[in-house]
Amino acid sequence: MASSKPKKEFGNMTDASGDELKLLGVWDSPYVNRVQIVLNLKGISYEYIEEDLMNKSDLLLRSNPVHKKVPVLIHNGKPIAESQVIVQYLDDAFPNAGVLLLPSDPFERAVARFWAVYVDDKVGSPWYTILFAKEREEKLEAAARAISAMETIEAAFREKNAAEGAPFFGGDGIGFVDVVLGSYLGWFRVIEKMIGVRILDAARTPLLAAWAERFEAADAVRGVLPDDVDKVIDFLQTFLH
Amino acid sequence: MASSKPKKEFGNMTDASGDELKLLGVWDSPYVNRVQIVLNLKGISYEYIEEDLMNKSDLLLRSNPVHKKVPVLIHNGKPIAESQVIVQYLDDAFPNAGVLLLPSDPFERAVARFWAVYVDDKVGSPWYTILFAKEREEKLEAAARAISAMETIEAAFREKNAAEGAPFFGGDGIGFVDVVLGSYLGWFRVIEKMIGVRILDAARTPLLAAWAERFEAADAVRGVLPDDVDKVIDFLQTFLH
Repeated sequence: MASSKPKKEFGNMTDASGDELKLLGVWDSPYVNRVQIVLNLKGISYEYIEEDLMNKSDLLLRSNPVHKKVPVLIHNGKPIAESQVIVQYLDDAFPNAGVLLLPSDPFERAVARFWAVYVDDKVGSPWYTILFAKEREEKLEAAARAISAMETIEAAFREKNAAEGAPFFGGDGIGFVDVVLGSYLGWFRVIEKMIGVRILDAARTPLLAAWAERFEAADAVRGVLPDDVDKVIDFLQTFLH
Repeated sequence: MASSKPKKEFGNMTDASGDELKLLGVWDSPYVNRVQIVLNLKGISYEYIEEDLMNKSDLLLRSNPVHKKVPVLIHNGKPIAESQVIVQYLDDAFPNAGVLLLPSDPFERAVARFWAVYVDDKVGSPWYTILFAKEREEKLEAAARAISAMETIEAAFREKNAAEGAPFFGGDGIGFVDVVLGSYLGWFRVIEKMIGVRILDAARTPLLAAWAERFEAADAVRGVLPDDVDKVIDFLQTFLH
């Protein structure tokens, strides 16, 4: 499945005209989804190429020989791998394409980078364990770690943003930490169905629950995150056999 | 132990005059050492404060409440944690302080970030396992992973830099990937003494072996990395009891 996704509806001016962008991805990957969201936010047109992870394309193997993983963004023939690296690259390479994901203030940039690393380490790693660990015990232990991390993130969000009434980690608009954390939202529903544990629970983390609704309602996000839980679980089975 | 380290001998112009910088660290930490090297490269004066990890200071606990780890850089009262975040912060906050660690070209920046993440993931994580795993088997397995990663890094260095004759990952001078990888060099000697395995071996990775000599000879690096293997091992024992 390869589809072209020009996102002219966001109406940003981009300096990407004449540039060729390809995104190698898998439809249900949070790491791919965050890159799609950022491309949407910036209004940058790109060709999306769905990879079959059981039969990786030569283009993927050649473009990311070290990890052989998606996402890979190929910009005018040059491949960039690792989703957080790609998001920062898009800020650097298209500084005039509407939204910047990272704040311009050096200290605020550092804070955003700190939390982006935290999210992938403390939420992303448990997510992976929940999916692929064999023992239910191990899955539940990983889920507990993810929940604890969500509580830490809630506290940071409360302290930093609630006082200012800012709806997003990025302030008035979606920023780096928003896309990094937000890309797991569809998967939280999958995890709930798989193991009966709610990673994002309004009772524990009310600010993040409200934030998640705002995030998923954004034009750049709608239709990107997987919303059919059963379809995700079916797809996941292909990797578990 | 707290010592002030004005690094006027590097002779760079800095825009840090009037700025107050404190670095909370531990003398033998690669993550602290890389920040010290970058501050030296930039010719930025700072106060170094040695932490006792068995009895962490209130300043450390207050400055990095999430991880409670060193390094923390405190710039005019604002704390920044995580060594790779700090290094990028120093580029952003002091753009005119001599050297920039990250390349200015967006693609080259992405490549540098990719490899910096790779090094801490594939060399740093095994390093930690080698130190703290209980079983020798587990230490040896981690060392084998680190050696494999070094071979991958060697190949990247050969491909990217040897053709241009560039002595460092950063090109003519020390850059982001150089400080991230270079900060482990003292520990490679410690590991060799601890478990008899050479992570950096001129027979396997001759370009990295030559690069390491150049790196350690640099003014900004000399005296920063731990060079007394027995002292490091003695210090490590305090954490293993």
